Amino acid sequence: MSSNLETTPRAVVLVSGGLDSATTLAIARHSGFDCYALSFDYGQRHRHELEAAKRVCSTIGVSEHAVVPLDLRQFGGSALTSEIAVPKDRDEKTMSAGIPVTYVPARNTVFLSIALAWAEVLGAFDLFIGVNAVDYSGYPDCRPEFIDRFERLANVATKAGVEGAGLFQIHTPLILLKKTEIIAKGIELGVDFGLTHSCYDPFPDGTPCGHCDSCKLRLAGFAEAGLADPLVYAS
Amino acid sequence: MSSNLETTPRAVVLVSGGLDSATTLAIARHSGFDCYALSFDYGQRHRHELEAAKRVCSTIGVSEHAVVPLDLRQFGGSALTSEIAVPKDRDEKTMSAGIPVTYVPARNTVFLSIALAWAEVLGAFDLFIGVNAVDYSGYPDCRPEFIDRFERLANVATKAGVEGAGLFQIHTPLILLKKTEIIAKGIELGVDFGLTHSCYDPFPDGTPCGHCDSCKLRLAGFAEAGLADPLVYAS
Repeated sequence: MSSNLETTPRAVVLVSGGLDSATTLAIARHSGFDCYALSFDYGQRHRHELEAAKRVCSTIGVSEHAVVPLDLRQFGGSALTSEIAVPKDRDEKTMSAGIPVTYVPARNTVFLSIALAWAEVLGAFDLFIGVNAVDYSGYPDCRPEFIDRFERLANVATKAGVEGAGLFQIHTPLILLKKTEIIAKGIELGVDFGLTHSCYDPFPDGTPCGHCDSCKLRLAGFAEAGLADPLVYAS
Repeated sequence: MSSNLETTPRAVVLVSGGLDSATTLAIARHSGFDCYALSFDYGQRHRHELEAAKRVCSTIGVSEHAVVPLDLRQFGGSALTSEIAVPKDRDEKTMSAGIPVTYVPARNTVFLSIALAWAEVLGAFDLFIGVNAVDYSGYPDCRPEFIDRFERLANVATKAGVEGAGLFQIHTPLILLKKTEIIAKGIELGVDFGLTHSCYDPFPDGTPCGHCDSCKLRLAGFAEAGLADPLVYAS
């Protein structure tokens, strides 16, 4: 078994194409990991997210970018995987009042599980996910408690964990940062946020709506950082 | 929110088409659950498993049978998802000596995660999986410790768990049974084991090899029960 002293350690990084995952990938690279990016074609309402993920991966630099088809529309249950309308123009208080309809049932559990499967094949023990528990939409699977339990699961779920070849770690470098701090970190590491896509409900040409929770959190983050978002928004 | 007193509770049952999952489905039905069966087209070496899953579901009776395409061959890493040879004619001592090449990285974590996603959409809190930690092939994700950690994860990972609408339970009715006891239980519940498929490496027409770990465990279970396996084996 090769040790991390001899080879660059590998990491599997979940990359959605948004601002948070782009920053997370830059952090993983900056921390010296050989990065394997993982995206999902899960039946999201639009393809702009996946195109952004490809741009982000090729610019920041990864050894491989896997796009796994997994049709969560088969089950539905979310505004992101069905015809349920994406809520618009909600204020901060409303956003933080409960779990919104954009929540996709068990999405991060499913994504991390598949990341774990790939990590085990690659001989990687480090998984990166850009979840955030501060400026977020109230999703249960973005909280430290969820990450902690997934990490505990990973180490009994796998041959690699059980045989003691290493200890799986779920890295969440953004989990306690405010959106504005994430943006500052990304800029410090040279991330081009013009390549990213955050909107839940873009126009057909990919132009972000500017009104969904994701656009509003992003815009507020740039405003607080005293910076202009490089994306062009609709009206 | 409808309570279980008013409606038949729903359960998601993982059905591979093997002897264990058929018995598990029969147990879930017998326990009064309205069953939603879930199978995966994960790039397994042959289609006989999925055909058996369909036969088992339609015979035992389910409200819906979802077959989710999820190509684990994209990652490989197992004799069941790559060209690695399936080991044959291993004795019990060898079988129990370590985790074999038929282990599919993080498979049960991935399968249970997707079952959890569907359960949440269905309003179900009960998941059934036919794992077994006695007469098994040494897979880490068949042990009580794994199931316990997954259950803990499920209850913080989901909107349904966090909002307290119910408590997710992972039912593993076979986990402490010997193979011969599983067969006896299945027969007691009327399972037709002639419809199931257990072989890791069948002939093109579906005839089980009789020599892989799965066939050997199954044959030994029937022999110990003093019964004939209804399947016809090669030579």
